Amino acid sequence: MLVNGKPGKLISIRDRGLLYGDGVFRTLRTTLGKAQHWPLHYQKLQHDCVALGIICPDAALLASELNDLLALHPDGVVKLIVTRGEGTRGYAPPVCAKTTHLWDIGLLPDYPADWAEHGIKARLCQLRLSQQPRLAGIKHLNRLENVLAAAEWNDTDIAEGILLDDSGNVIEGTRSNLFMVRDGVLLTPDLSRCGVDGVQRGRVMQWADSHNVPCRVEQFGLEELLAADEVFLVNSVIGLWPLRELQGRNWGQHLLAMQVQKDLNHAPD
Amino acid sequence: MLVNGKPGKLISIRDRGLLYGDGVFRTLRTTLGKAQHWPLHYQKLQHDCVALGIICPDAALLASELNDLLALHPDGVVKLIVTRGEGTRGYAPPVCAKTTHLWDIGLLPDYPADWAEHGIKARLCQLRLSQQPRLAGIKHLNRLENVLAAAEWNDTDIAEGILLDDSGNVIEGTRSNLFMVRDGVLLTPDLSRCGVDGVQRGRVMQWADSHNVPCRVEQFGLEELLAADEVFLVNSVIGLWPLRELQGRNWGQHLLAMQVQKDLNHAPD
Repeated sequence: MLVNGKPGKLISIRDRGLLYGDGVFRTLRTTLGKAQHWPLHYQKLQHDCVALGIICPDAALLASELNDLLALHPDGVVKLIVTRGEGTRGYAPPVCAKTTHLWDIGLLPDYPADWAEHGIKARLCQLRLSQQPRLAGIKHLNRLENVLAAAEWNDTDIAEGILLDDSGNVIEGTRSNLFMVRDGVLLTPDLSRCGVDGVQRGRVMQWADSHNVPCRVEQFGLEELLAADEVFLVNSVIGLWPLRELQGRNWGQHLLAMQVQKDLNHAPD
Repeated sequence: MLVNGKPGKLISIRDRGLLYGDGVFRTLRTTLGKAQHWPLHYQKLQHDCVALGIICPDAALLASELNDLLALHPDGVVKLIVTRGEGTRGYAPPVCAKTTHLWDIGLLPDYPADWAEHGIKARLCQLRLSQQPRLAGIKHLNRLENVLAAAEWNDTDIAEGILLDDSGNVIEGTRSNLFMVRDGVLLTPDLSRCGVDGVQRGRVMQWADSHNVPCRVEQFGLEELLAADEVFLVNSVIGLWPLRELQGRNWGQHLLAMQVQKDLNHAPD
């Protein structure tokens, strides 16, 4: 673990990341000493920092620290957190806030191989996401909705929970983005009012573009989701999981999903 | 500062308070070695912990630590944070999470005395609060909406920002609860879909009850607020501030507000 470039695993109790969740983060997979799609993650980190008015750490600095981490921990998962830094004088961001950035490492979660190969069972979460355009899409540290949603089940056969917003639109999984296939067209929810716009979502859209598969961002509800030809979930750690079962609906084939999965897993950085 | 009962000012970067804002807090005023209205604060802390499924630290333990703090820092502001503790395996709360609790101290903010005596100028925030019934009322650590709202102005003449929800209902100040007076009746916004239900709000409602002043919780919009006879803002640190100016509307008299202020300031714990 590194805190502001130095080995350590502690931060100040006055850090605004703790006090207010005033920060952003990235979770990425590392393989053979390489961080997968780091440039895309840095780009998203920058975007999210700008959205919150946080000064993003320099690309070269982060790349250098990441390389040091990778030399010691070549395979697994790396988490990067950037907060607005210390401050105790209320909610207003300090004029001269000095950003805190820290790295943590972990093992790759031990998911059953079957989930990626034959699909997962998911549940519909009771919690409905609130709509806040100012925070939508950003991978920020205010994640209590995800915590409450993930607390809804403990059946280990259920790999993910699907989240709707409070208007009934399908938005995402508790820790993944969602795509559905209808008549050969890829559809992914509009995240302009809630949800997290992940790097892997962008990679799927990029894949669609380069393979001449129509891909649209739009609103759809649960009924349309259950009527889809295929559904799949993506994030940077799990890669792509086809959806096998939700609300009694079973999907037997995942033709397009498996093609996307294969290409994403083998794509260069 | 105390972290889990020991002097210290650092917590683990794996604490879920930082990772997800998975925790709650209290801010209270201390005077002459006494924490104001501690029993009410502990009651609210317990309520908020239950709402998130966090194990609340024992009352006697917290009271004992608070007493130690007060002996060294008799006057000012004390902040208490309780988080779900450490954990890095995703959003779902760990089965055996060990709560983290920590205390921090600070000086009483140096507000102009005039604000309590003759009222404050406030602005209407552009940010609209999102509606999440599962988190409404709780003083949790997901406070990015407050941060963004407080970042909207830096004119030091403006003491507070007023927040509406995304349906246009008046909800609160960025760090205070709001009351208005209309025809001798106290009205305070319904906080069942957003906002923080503070201890001082409860004290005002209790005051109204014991003084036979009608007090109702209900929804109202900006127009009704501007048409009110009086408006005032409360929290445990500022006490009570009458509203003198908002959106070009000026209030010259604060008869009921000043009576409430006087009684609250002199009420026993």
